[in-house]
Amino acid sequence: MVGIGNALVDILSHQDDTFVERLGVPKGGMTLIDEERAEQIYALMGPAIEVSGGSAANTMVGVASFGGSARYLSRIRDDQLGAVFAHDLRAAGVAFDVPPAGHGPSTGCCFVVVTPDAERTMNTYLGASVHFGPADVDEGVVASAGVLYLEGYLFDTPEAQEAFRVAARHANGNGTRVAVTLSDEFCVERHRTAFRSLIEEHVDLVFANEAEVTSLFEVDDFAAAAERLRHHGSVAALTRGAAGSVVVTEDDLIEVPAEPVSTVVDTTGAGDLYAAGFLHGFSTGRPLDVCARLGSIAAAEVISHLGARPLVPLRELAADVLS
Amino acid sequence: MVGIGNALVDILSHQDDTFVERLGVPKGGMTLIDEERAEQIYALMGPAIEVSGGSAANTMVGVASFGGSARYLSRIRDDQLGAVFAHDLRAAGVAFDVPPAGHGPSTGCCFVVVTPDAERTMNTYLGASVHFGPADVDEGVVASAGVLYLEGYLFDTPEAQEAFRVAARHANGNGTRVAVTLSDEFCVERHRTAFRSLIEEHVDLVFANEAEVTSLFEVDDFAAAAERLRHHGSVAALTRGAAGSVVVTEDDLIEVPAEPVSTVVDTTGAGDLYAAGFLHGFSTGRPLDVCARLGSIAAAEVISHLGARPLVPLRELAADVLS
Repeated sequence: MVGIGNALVDILSHQDDTFVERLGVPKGGMTLIDEERAEQIYALMGPAIEVSGGSAANTMVGVASFGGSARYLSRIRDDQLGAVFAHDLRAAGVAFDVPPAGHGPSTGCCFVVVTPDAERTMNTYLGASVHFGPADVDEGVVASAGVLYLEGYLFDTPEAQEAFRVAARHANGNGTRVAVTLSDEFCVERHRTAFRSLIEEHVDLVFANEAEVTSLFEVDDFAAAAERLRHHGSVAALTRGAAGSVVVTEDDLIEVPAEPVSTVVDTTGAGDLYAAGFLHGFSTGRPLDVCARLGSIAAAEVISHLGARPLVPLRELAADVLS
Repeated sequence: MVGIGNALVDILSHQDDTFVERLGVPKGGMTLIDEERAEQIYALMGPAIEVSGGSAANTMVGVASFGGSARYLSRIRDDQLGAVFAHDLRAAGVAFDVPPAGHGPSTGCCFVVVTPDAERTMNTYLGASVHFGPADVDEGVVASAGVLYLEGYLFDTPEAQEAFRVAARHANGNGTRVAVTLSDEFCVERHRTAFRSLIEEHVDLVFANEAEVTSLFEVDDFAAAAERLRHHGSVAALTRGAAGSVVVTEDDLIEVPAEPVSTVVDTTGAGDLYAAGFLHGFSTGRPLDVCARLGSIAAAEVISHLGARPLVPLRELAADVLS
C-alpha cells in the first residue's frame, strides 16, 4: 500500500470553545493558514505537545500497525520537525525514503485545538508540502503497490491535484487500486468538481463522512449521497461518527456499528484510522463488512487517547477479527 | 523566582526494559550524549512525542501553575525546537525573554525512555545549553528575585558551574535566597566537590533524593546524609519516592507523606514538580511542612500522566492547602 498526503507534525493543545470562536475558524474543520497566521495562532495557544500527524500518514501507520506493508510519499524540509516526522513514520514501520528538501518552506505543521467535547479543530500550515507535485510521484512505487491511497487535503494546491491525477492514471494502468479520502467538507466545497472527476475517472474506493459526501453531491441527506455513489460502480466507506459506518457498493449497502469507547478523549485521527482498518481488510481480500469492522476497531482505539496514531498494535487489538 | 537550567525538549517514547539494557545506560539516570549518539538512539527508538522539558524549566512552570511569578534563564537556538521550548514556557506563564542564538549547536533535547514500571531513563543532548556561562546570568533578574533556583544538571559543564557561582554570589549579596537541586546521583558523583562547596558557601535550600544525598556525602544511609545537611544551617527537602519527603533543618526533621496516586504513568518530572510546590510555599512564607505538602501534591499530579509538566492548574489542585 502506498499513501500520498501532507507531511505534518501536529502541535496539539487543549483549549475551550471560546478559543476556537476567537480564532474565527469552523469548529471541527481544517483551515489552511500561512506562516504569519501560524505564528499568531501559536502565540495565542497554551502549552502544547508535538506528535507526528498528517491524515494519510496516520492511515499508513495504522496499516503497518495491522501488520500490512505501507509506504508514504510526501515532502519535508531538512529541519527538526522534518526529522521528527520521518522518524515517527519509520519507527512505526512505514517505508519513507523521500529525501528532505534542502531549501524552501519548513516542514508543515498543524495546530490542533482539542476542545472539552473531544472535537478537534485544525489550522494547517502546509510548509514544504505546498510544493508536492507530479515529480514527487514515484511511478515504480505506485505500479508495484496493491492500493494507492490519496489524501483529499492535497486538493488544496493545483500541483498536488495534478500529482493525484498522474498517480491515479499510473495506478489504473498497472492494476493498482485507487482509494481516496475526501478529508474535510470545506475542502470538498473548495474543490468539488475536481474531486468528482477524479472519483469518476480513477477511483475504486472512496472514504468520506456524512458532511463530506453530501457536500460532494450537493444533496441534503446521506441516503441521497449514498445513492449517487452506488451508481458509480466502486466501493464507498462512509463514516457516521458514533453511528458507525455504511459501506455502499453497486448492489449492496452494509451498515456496521461503531466499536464502543469508554471515554472519547480526542477525535483527531478517527477517520484516518477507520481508513487504515478498512484498507488493511480490503487489501487482504476480506469481505467488506469485515473491512468496516477493522476500521471501527482502529478508530475506537485512536479516539480513546490524545494524538492521531495508535498506541497499541492494532493486529493484536483486532486479533479475533483477523484470525 | 528565577530558575537557571538546561533548555530541553523531551522526545518521549515507551520502550521495554531490554531497550534500556541495549543502550547500556543506567536505568532511571541521566546520561549525557553527543550529536552522533543522539542520532543512534533516535534511530533505535519507537514513535515518540515531543514535550517541552528541562528540569528547572519544569519547576518554573509548576511555580507559575501555583500562581507564583517565575522567570527562566537558559540558552536555545533559533530553530524549531527552540521555538517550541520558548512557546511552552511563555504559554505556561513563565517569563522567558532570552534571545535565541543565531549560530552554534541546535536547541537541546532529551530522549526519555519510559519503561512499563513508569520509570524514566534520560539521554540528554545539551545542544545550545552547553554554552551557558556567566554572561548568561542576568544580574538584575537575580537581584530582584525572591529565590534563585539552580538545576544541578548544569554542573556538567565548567562554564555553567562558574555561572552558578556568579549567580549565587550575586543572590547572596542582594538578599535573594539560593536553592539548588542535585538532579541526579551520577551528576553528583561527577561533581561532588563542586556541589559541596556551592552548598556550603551559597545555598539556603537543597533539593535531593536519597541516592543523590548519600552520594553527595559518601555515606551509606539516608539518616547519616540528613545529619550532615542538618549541621549546615540551611533547609534540605529530601524526597523518597512513594515514601514521601523529609525536611531537614538545624533543629527539626519533618516527615511528610506522598500524596496517593491511583496509577503512576510516568515519573518524569516528579522531583521537578516537588521542588515547584515546595518553592512556591517557601517563597510565600508558608511553614516547611506545608511547603513539602505542596510539593507532594504537585509531584502526584505530574506522575499520573505522560510528560513532566502539570496538566491542571496546581493552584486549584492545592486550593485547600493554599487557603
